[in-house]
Amino acid sequence: MKSFKIALAQFSPHTGNFELNAQKMVEQANEAKKQRADIIVFPELCTVGYSAEDLLLRPSLSKRTQKVFEILGQVKDIVMVFGFVNQAETGQRYNSAAVVKDGQVLGVYNKQNLPNYSVFDEKRYFASGNQQLVFEYMEHKFAVLICEDIWSINTVQQLTQLKAQTVLVLNSSPYEVGKPQHRIQTMQQLVKQLNFNLVYVNQVCGQDDIIFDGSSFVLNPQGELVTRAPSFQECLHYAEYSADKDAFIVQEIAPELDTMAEIYQALVMATRDYIQRSGFPGVILGLSGGIDSALTLAIAVDAIGADKVQAVMMPYTYTAQISVEDAAAQAKTMGVTFGIAEINPIVNGFLQTLYPFFGNSPADTTEENLQARARGTLLMALSNKFGNLVLSTGNKSEVAVGYCTLYGDMVGGFSVLKDVYKTIVFELAKYRNSLSEVPVIPERVITRPPSAELSPDQKDQDSLPPYDILDAILYAYIEEDMSQEDIIAKGFERATVEKVIKLVDRNEYKRRQGAIGPRISSRAFGRDRRYPIVNGWKPGV
Amino acid sequence: MKSFKIALAQFSPHTGNFELNAQKMVEQANEAKKQRADIIVFPELCTVGYSAEDLLLRPSLSKRTQKVFEILGQVKDIVMVFGFVNQAETGQRYNSAAVVKDGQVLGVYNKQNLPNYSVFDEKRYFASGNQQLVFEYMEHKFAVLICEDIWSINTVQQLTQLKAQTVLVLNSSPYEVGKPQHRIQTMQQLVKQLNFNLVYVNQVCGQDDIIFDGSSFVLNPQGELVTRAPSFQECLHYAEYSADKDAFIVQEIAPELDTMAEIYQALVMATRDYIQRSGFPGVILGLSGGIDSALTLAIAVDAIGADKVQAVMMPYTYTAQISVEDAAAQAKTMGVTFGIAEINPIVNGFLQTLYPFFGNSPADTTEENLQARARGTLLMALSNKFGNLVLSTGNKSEVAVGYCTLYGDMVGGFSVLKDVYKTIVFELAKYRNSLSEVPVIPERVITRPPSAELSPDQKDQDSLPPYDILDAILYAYIEEDMSQEDIIAKGFERATVEKVIKLVDRNEYKRRQGAIGPRISSRAFGRDRRYPIVNGWKPGV
Repeated sequence: MKSFKIALAQFSPHTGNFELNAQKMVEQANEAKKQRADIIVFPELCTVGYSAEDLLLRPSLSKRTQKVFEILGQVKDIVMVFGFVNQAETGQRYNSAAVVKDGQVLGVYNKQNLPNYSVFDEKRYFASGNQQLVFEYMEHKFAVLICEDIWSINTVQQLTQLKAQTVLVLNSSPYEVGKPQHRIQTMQQLVKQLNFNLVYVNQVCGQDDIIFDGSSFVLNPQGELVTRAPSFQECLHYAEYSADKDAFIVQEIAPELDTMAEIYQALVMATRDYIQRSGFPGVILGLSGGIDSALTLAIAVDAIGADKVQAVMMPYTYTAQISVEDAAAQAKTMGVTFGIAEINPIVNGFLQTLYPFFGNSPADTTEENLQARARGTLLMALSNKFGNLVLSTGNKSEVAVGYCTLYGDMVGGFSVLKDVYKTIVFELAKYRNSLSEVPVIPERVITRPPSAELSPDQKDQDSLPPYDILDAILYAYIEEDMSQEDIIAKGFERATVEKVIKLVDRNEYKRRQGAIGPRISSRAFGRDRRYPIVNGWKPGV
Repeated sequence: MKSFKIALAQFSPHTGNFELNAQKMVEQANEAKKQRADIIVFPELCTVGYSAEDLLLRPSLSKRTQKVFEILGQVKDIVMVFGFVNQAETGQRYNSAAVVKDGQVLGVYNKQNLPNYSVFDEKRYFASGNQQLVFEYMEHKFAVLICEDIWSINTVQQLTQLKAQTVLVLNSSPYEVGKPQHRIQTMQQLVKQLNFNLVYVNQVCGQDDIIFDGSSFVLNPQGELVTRAPSFQECLHYAEYSADKDAFIVQEIAPELDTMAEIYQALVMATRDYIQRSGFPGVILGLSGGIDSALTLAIAVDAIGADKVQAVMMPYTYTAQISVEDAAAQAKTMGVTFGIAEINPIVNGFLQTLYPFFGNSPADTTEENLQARARGTLLMALSNKFGNLVLSTGNKSEVAVGYCTLYGDMVGGFSVLKDVYKTIVFELAKYRNSLSEVPVIPERVITRPPSAELSPDQKDQDSLPPYDILDAILYAYIEEDMSQEDIIAKGFERATVEKVIKLVDRNEYKRRQGAIGPRISSRAFGRDRRYPIVNGWKPGV
């Protein structure tokens, strides 16, 4: 029996950029060696990044992967376990793990359980493996699994029959609220039942709409947490196995995050990764004096720094003076570039051109949308001229019921709060304010009744149910897939439920053209909820 | 041995609308009975429509399907074979076919081969069946297969071992250019090799971006075409089996369409179905005097009639007088409502508001985009006020390289030419003109050099390679998945190829926010080509 040390490489790959990823892997392996690690474990598919989607189908993929193996071959005296795409000679493609030492491939494992639900499309890309991989090193028996495999009791049971002492699991497991704790709880039951050590290494990054939280950990066969890496940070984390104790030594355990801290950090990382990896020098957003843009601004500043953030207030006739004041105050507190751009000349230009078509027809949402679109176009013009990415500021409640203007407030490349219900937006704003002595979001922005300010004295609650009720109905319909009648049976007013569901169903076309945004729920709009636009489904049962 | 008659129900389901579909199926079965058919065959999943996507995951699906069976139970004295979702008691969901007579279910077949590539995600929804269904009726042995099954030689061979004489195949097979002929050619080989009659029934409709062309047909074991239904039309078509001849009688064979006729009709049907099934009273589009909007207008008129189509010319300082003339002339020839809306006051309003930000910085694409976005917002305002759907007019070449303005000319709910390369746009315009004595698209619109008219004397070819070269490179890169080096090796200039590929890769974010449009190629932008936005892939090998 020997002591050994495992480096958990909580790695942030750049999707599709093989050379960069390989170079970083070499650096991390060398760093791990300095720390006298014997084994370094990287996440699932870390050479290409998860999820690379249809890049995985490009013919040169295997050539590029081979290059990565050559680069990694430089690394000596440490066992590297990492995820890669295995293009077999049979023509089959596998989601695989390699065990490599001194440039020699000691073993390859092909993922057996391929998720093809929720945000996953692995059966589009991969064939299933059907063999276990167990190897001995440091007089210890290791097995390798990949992500979904560890959730399959059948697969894991076979490993214990093969007497694996420690299972190394390579993951690219998407984040959703509470997922870091949920993984550990489930895995604790499993290791206790089947009696093995579990080394769980997860990718950490935002990739388009999907967040990978890291939160890597190690459990011993008693289900105790031996060590845990922090969430939402790239890092090398270590676990030590003691020959004396014949067990992993309990070490540094990153503290569990409260729900709001967890969501906030998730959004900050996703926003930072999107901006930086898309190559934008900074961001711009419309600051309305409302809570959504206020929170988005705070997240942007925390993601990339105030010096790279520009906020613009775009008042019109219906904009309250306190909105302008609050926007200016927030911009000042946060130290971002701030400008005011009146949209009256623009809206007037539109109304003038449209007069021959509209005549004296009474104003309706058309005129409201003109204001929103004037603002959207202004933001895009500033983005085009100076190169900053436009952040969209809508929340999940709005996007769900279409309480937003396509090509108006929906413009932008990244929609930070897209998967955050309005009730959670309030909680997050309070959470962020609790972090600093001077609240970065003026108190009044949180307490005043929400308004789109697109017509005189307008309030959100003129057209929508109160947000606590709206969000509860939306959650039941979207996250829980409940039927209209079942939601009504929970005690909500029939008319309200019918209205909300109709709005959700009708607004698929809007959502389809909206910017992507970070997924924090178990059912986000996007690849997670694929609804047809032309859709004759009738609510009811 | 008996004579019998089969009705091929080339059916157009309304996705998700079970009751409507069931009612229509009853009507068609009764009509087939009047024509003394013994069997009526409907397409794959016709009760819910293909593709219903995540509607298939809703818990009430089986309840709704059961209701359909009850409604279909009214039909007497004809065997109905139709596609439905089979929610098995094991919890598994299958893509299935039922054989029903007088309300009695005589047999159920579960699809064995589930496509999960290209536009298909069937493994997201279904488990695979593993049993053949062969039944005897009219002293004849029938087998049932579903779509992908007939392309699997292993699956089909088992049927011939079971001595099936006629295979009924229920399909929802997506259209792409040449697909109607391709299916028949492939199936001719198959029936000759394995010696059976083939009754191929295909769904016909546009469902969001996917076109189902119908083009149902019957082959005898010699590979002869016994009958063929027209493409792009819902219809009941018949095939008669003669006991005397012990063979299907050769009957009405719908003529094969030329490529341009085929594409044109595909686009017309897709556009009509999208507009009508989304419940819009009509459409509106910007008519620029260019060929894309001219062709889109012709398709719209052919789809829903001139009285439901509104065209708007939105000139600016850089708009040529002949553009205004040609737009007006086309609108007049086609008999659509036509209006002119100058955008100068709007653009001036934007420039005035932006002056404090822009100062005297030289004009660039920012100012071009302002013009496009002023137009987009005008169209949306007219749409909001009067209820017509905005049709987007961009073509595949533009969308590929991002030669279009997000929230500008890209606005709209349906992008008719989204999957049509510019070189094909020219062909289609000529084809449409050939159909009527007076050309509906003025000759000059086809012959003058394409221009976006966003700056003085601008031509598309100032920033893009000639369209024949551009389209050839795009086709190689997108449809054929060729690498940059391989495309250069075909004889294209290195600089041009590098530029085009860079543009395609960079503009994923624009496409992701664009309207859906009908797929006519083997690789359309959309669910057919799922690329990450944040993407570090380097072109090259």
